[in-house]
Amino acid sequence: MSGIIDLRLRPPLGGFLTTIMFREKDRTMARTRQLGLEPPPSVQTLSVNALLAEMDAAGVEIGVITGRNTGSGFGTVTNDEVAAIAARHPRRFLACGGVNPVDGAAALREVDRIADEWQMPAISMEPGFAPHPMRANDRRLYPIYARCADRGLAVILTLSLNTGPDVSYCLPVDVDQVAHDFPELPLVIAHACWPWVQPMLGVAFRRTNIYLSPDIYAINLPGRDDFALAARTYLQDRFLFASGYPFAPVGGAVQAYRALGFTGEVADKIFRQNAAGLLRLPAP
Amino acid sequence: MSGIIDLRLRPPLGGFLTTIMFREKDRTMARTRQLGLEPPPSVQTLSVNALLAEMDAAGVEIGVITGRNTGSGFGTVTNDEVAAIAARHPRRFLACGGVNPVDGAAALREVDRIADEWQMPAISMEPGFAPHPMRANDRRLYPIYARCADRGLAVILTLSLNTGPDVSYCLPVDVDQVAHDFPELPLVIAHACWPWVQPMLGVAFRRTNIYLSPDIYAINLPGRDDFALAARTYLQDRFLFASGYPFAPVGGAVQAYRALGFTGEVADKIFRQNAAGLLRLPAP
Amino acid sequence: MSGIIDLRLRPPLGGFLTTIMFREKDRTMARTRQLGLEPPPSVQTLSVNALLAEMDAAGVEIGVITGRNTGSGFGTVTNDEVAAIAARHPRRFLACGGVNPVDGAAALREVDRIADEWQMPAISMEPGFAPHPMRANDRRLYPIYARCADRGLAVILTLSLNTGPDVSYCLPVDVDQVAHDFPELPLVIAHACWPWVQPMLGVAFRRTNIYLSPDIYAINLPGRDDFALAARTYLQDRFLFASGYPFAPVGGAVQAYRALGFTGEVADKIFRQNAAGLLRLPAP
Repeated sequence: MSGIIDLRLRPPLGGFLTTIMFREKDRTMARTRQLGLEPPPSVQTLSVNALLAEMDAAGVEIGVITGRNTGSGFGTVTNDEVAAIAARHPRRFLACGGVNPVDGAAALREVDRIADEWQMPAISMEPGFAPHPMRANDRRLYPIYARCADRGLAVILTLSLNTGPDVSYCLPVDVDQVAHDFPELPLVIAHACWPWVQPMLGVAFRRTNIYLSPDIYAINLPGRDDFALAARTYLQDRFLFASGYPFAPVGGAVQAYRALGFTGEVADKIFRQNAAGLLRLPAP
Repeated sequence: MSGIIDLRLRPPLGGFLTTIMFREKDRTMARTRQLGLEPPPSVQTLSVNALLAEMDAAGVEIGVITGRNTGSGFGTVTNDEVAAIAARHPRRFLACGGVNPVDGAAALREVDRIADEWQMPAISMEPGFAPHPMRANDRRLYPIYARCADRGLAVILTLSLNTGPDVSYCLPVDVDQVAHDFPELPLVIAHACWPWVQPMLGVAFRRTNIYLSPDIYAINLPGRDDFALAARTYLQDRFLFASGYPFAPVGGAVQAYRALGFTGEVADKIFRQNAAGLLRLPAP
Repeated sequence: MSGIIDLRLRPPLGGFLTTIMFREKDRTMARTRQLGLEPPPSVQTLSVNALLAEMDAAGVEIGVITGRNTGSGFGTVTNDEVAAIAARHPRRFLACGGVNPVDGAAALREVDRIADEWQMPAISMEPGFAPHPMRANDRRLYPIYARCADRGLAVILTLSLNTGPDVSYCLPVDVDQVAHDFPELPLVIAHACWPWVQPMLGVAFRRTNIYLSPDIYAINLPGRDDFALAARTYLQDRFLFASGYPFAPVGGAVQAYRALGFTGEVADKIFRQNAAGLLRLPAP
């Protein structure tokens, strides 16, 4: 298979090199091994050319990169920077804007800039990393959700037990309420609220504006079979492949997702078509 | 197999035709297809004779019908009406009374009428559909639980992510508390608090007055294998088949439940005996 | 296989005979059958020699016994008593101290005595059984956690739907917070917060000072396959075999854990090495 879109990938370039995942490579590679996968050469060498070769070998055409500005010690990647990376590699990286939800009115202006200046299709937020950590239904996020719904932008929320002080910061009920309150806003849940697998899959059964992209959390972890069953059936139009690179190798992630049993049209949707529609990519 | 009792079925008759499930047939049939099943002819034609033929073909002898009066736009089916339907089809439909939990003292009088006038074996409530939605442990429900325990009536609660504003309205802990507080009250949980599958199965492991009848939520949905394991073992005397018709076809639901691996005596219990005991049906 | 360490076993000796599990043998044996297992002869006869023979037949070398003093009607086993039992059977039973969390300053003195007088490697608490039931993150437990961290003792918490008033007393988020707040304190979660299987396995993925020992709750119960997947992979160094005897027979429990698919080095870790390290046993 070729033409795969990887919804969550951080290349070893620019500001990404300042983030903890590349600054502490050994910690990142230990996480990869915890999933039963071997860290790829590109993480060792921090070589973008090696990464591009790994993407080619895995059939991954496009990696989605997002700005990140949480002010939390994870490192910063500006929206100017992700836009520049995507401009330099136009057929390999696609940029979405990062928004810091504690920025208040400035966050709304950044949403507008993401829509107007860069014509990006989505914004990304990681509310659990805020200095005063937020849950997905925090009131401070509602103006941003409203602006994105108004501007036709999808919202990517990263939610799992690793994106907040404890496992109560990634409850699917929070997403349930947001999806209800903004029924026309596409909500992509990166990490899929893992480990709340069954409740999250239930909420996504009811709220059809929710998309799930569990990335590494569908790789050899509990709940894997629940994800697979949903993705093969009612969620097949709203389940999105992502590697979470550098935490998983691109090729190993593709193999692990294949092992969930996706074939034929369902595989096409999950590895490419769902993301292409959401990100408004032209048909090939 | 024959003699199956279907614990949740709404025939296209009387007040049921005013409910949203028959008024918006296309929405109902879309839900059926979401489960990987084909909508049956009787939903297309709204023909009770077609439904009876489908029941015959599937080995379903009796469908349990319940009054519904939530005041919530889902439509109303009075207890007089379900009693009349059952009287007209005495060997095919068995009626239980619907009680509106916001009715206060009138609800208690309705419980008495269900017991005395119609000698029905159970009442049904859908607390999440109330104008001010209730959770199962809401104080307003406690007088009704107490009256049912006193009168020897079972209580059927419909609890899932689709029966309230969000997924926090179907938490198994609420059922845990009610089952503890009324240890002699048989509590049938229709929809089985889906998607809280593992916690619900845990609560039912401890509280032996809880019966689970997940209806469509055990058909090709996440948690299916957890339901199947429990129903084949410790829950075999308290797990009840239901189709949820018209959301699933009667025959397709029977096949999906068979696919959970029930055989021999366990199948007899789940498809008939457990319901027959709970509803005080005479032995065949 | 031989040399197995069973992390939760109560021999029919001394104060254990006063606990509800031996006082109400029929209730205990009914629970065993609920798991699909046959009660062993030693429960019928209350013979410690029969139990030792069953341990031999199953390859179980050492059973871990803990003091229990909850003041809750479950019966009492003093620390003096478990120390004496272990002294009488030095190669078969290993004692850990029970601490009653409502004892305040006396509980801290008991922790010191457990460390100094008996040199035990761990304490056990069952906070849900307190007269005013506690959750694992209750403030009253924090001085005890701090003292154990200071003294180098592991803490065994028994947490499941059966160890408190309802299923909200065994939430993995409580353990998440404690593990975060005491990162150097080994926390062994007996019963593994069942039925919160997926959330608990998630919390243990993040917090590497958490050890899980589900005992009977990984035997033929929902969530079993999630436990097995985690224990074969990322949790292989922190998953511990326990039978929960007398609720399960020692041999039947070993077989049921083997059926989870542990082989080679992983089996060695789960059946012995992890416990040996945690309990500071000398290498064989």
